[in-house]
Amino acid sequence: MHFERTRTHTSWDRNLPPLAELTPGEELVVDTAEASGGQLNPGSAPRDLEALDFSRLNPVTGPFAVASARPGDALVVDILDIAVGSWGWTACIPGFGLLADDFTAPHLRISKITEGSAELLPGLTIPLAPMLGTIGVAPPEPGPHGMIPPRRWGGNMDIRHLGPGSRLILPVGVEGALLSLGDAHAAMGDGEVAGTGIETDATVRIRVDLLRDAAPRTPVVETDARSHRTGRALATTGIGPDLMRASRDATRALVDLVVARSGLAPEDAYLLASVSGDLKISEIVDTPNWVVTAHLPLDVLG
Amino acid sequence: MHFERTRTHTSWDRNLPPLAELTPGEELVVDTAEASGGQLNPGSAPRDLEALDFSRLNPVTGPFAVASARPGDALVVDILDIAVGSWGWTACIPGFGLLADDFTAPHLRISKITEGSAELLPGLTIPLAPMLGTIGVAPPEPGPHGMIPPRRWGGNMDIRHLGPGSRLILPVGVEGALLSLGDAHAAMGDGEVAGTGIETDATVRIRVDLLRDAAPRTPVVETDARSHRTGRALATTGIGPDLMRASRDATRALVDLVVARSGLAPEDAYLLASVSGDLKISEIVDTPNWVVTAHLPLDVLG
Repeated sequence: MHFERTRTHTSWDRNLPPLAELTPGEELVVDTAEASGGQLNPGSAPRDLEALDFSRLNPVTGPFAVASARPGDALVVDILDIAVGSWGWTACIPGFGLLADDFTAPHLRISKITEGSAELLPGLTIPLAPMLGTIGVAPPEPGPHGMIPPRRWGGNMDIRHLGPGSRLILPVGVEGALLSLGDAHAAMGDGEVAGTGIETDATVRIRVDLLRDAAPRTPVVETDARSHRTGRALATTGIGPDLMRASRDATRALVDLVVARSGLAPEDAYLLASVSGDLKISEIVDTPNWVVTAHLPLDVLG
Repeated sequence: MHFERTRTHTSWDRNLPPLAELTPGEELVVDTAEASGGQLNPGSAPRDLEALDFSRLNPVTGPFAVASARPGDALVVDILDIAVGSWGWTACIPGFGLLADDFTAPHLRISKITEGSAELLPGLTIPLAPMLGTIGVAPPEPGPHGMIPPRRWGGNMDIRHLGPGSRLILPVGVEGALLSLGDAHAAMGDGEVAGTGIETDATVRIRVDLLRDAAPRTPVVETDARSHRTGRALATTGIGPDLMRASRDATRALVDLVVARSGLAPEDAYLLASVSGDLKISEIVDTPNWVVTAHLPLDVLG
């Protein structure tokens, strides 16, 4: 199955009609749209940022219903491949970003994307590290819910490790799960400090599966050896408006997961997280909810 | 010059007499003591954690005066080598650590350290990634100042990238700088969530140099290709009791440094940080000051 990038929505809502119903274990190819939803193009100028209609930002392709999925299940999404477009945009949008008070003027760079790299500025190339900025399921609370903040149900988490080879485990909140995805980046750093990565169209191949009654408290990511600057790791998330609490939530989730998978005592899992785990700020710009991830290299668990 | 690990102090104070005066460019070898300062040993039990005298924690060897250093200068410390001891300890100390409310009982693991790895638990080995938890200069404000919180002047920053091959640039706060170091870890994750890494004695070889009137606002780290899970990168720091503010400070410092080193416009340096830079929580336990670092891989700057 192959779905086009015109079949998008720009808010989360449990009442959206699904584009299709998937069977657990099924693979599909999804075209995703760049985060402006067609409001920017390779000829855009900084002033075009001031005219952006924020309600059209971050379109996601979907939703996809998953047969037999019900609240309390875990939805397992394997990201098999991400082919990014031929151009991307990166911007400082007034009022948005970690240093919004310092950078008040609109600023825009269009990257030409070629095999292996993106030219962010003339002569400054960035290695490609494709990833999905937004992937999630419908919240159980009646919608609509805005597309910018991530939630327990995923969404605009901007975790740079959600690239090819990674696995995302989401809690299911409604019958059928209602999965959607979009907002691909050709590259993005942990934090996405200016509020944008190299925003681009993409063609994404995923496989979707289901684990009955195994919903994680917050999304879980497994990265593989291809993961840029990380390698094979288990990553848990804390999502919310307070970085300290998000750090605690991510760490607690990592301890619980290590205990469940390895049989270690909780105290030992906590010490293992302290000597081998890494706290990363995945995003600090998708107001009002930030994402902290706690990564444990899988090689230490054998 | 070789200094023994008995020559330590346990608070920062501009009035401490230096062990020696170094000439800029000089190399020295410093033996550092594990963070309990001899209160724990390979035969210690969890109950010994409850008897810890906190005023003796985190002893640092020093201070070393640097000839001609004066406030406003930058002290450049190259960490040439860290040889760790034959054992280490990792603990959950009641009241200390990110999940202190969850883990209230003392818990202690003694690691046997061999070539290349440390056995944290029977059968669970951690690759060695030696680093200095504490390295800093005397604050200009009259002391004593406690050893646990890091400050603008460095100290207990617990940045896991301060390993062999890395360079630390500290602001000088007093005449002679008064450098001290200690608290080596055989391994530690970003965040040091339980409050301890694999705490161990070490023999550290460093070279100390001076840059006139070039004090950074907060400490700067350059990592090299040997840096565990990071590679060659430029890292700036934000230090303080608020993670959001520390993230902003680290990001601002990275933008400024990239501008100074590359000649990029600030707006472009900000976008570069967004697409290639990583925000890491280096420590979130050394109350009341946390450390966020902003890392930019140096390969993107050519």
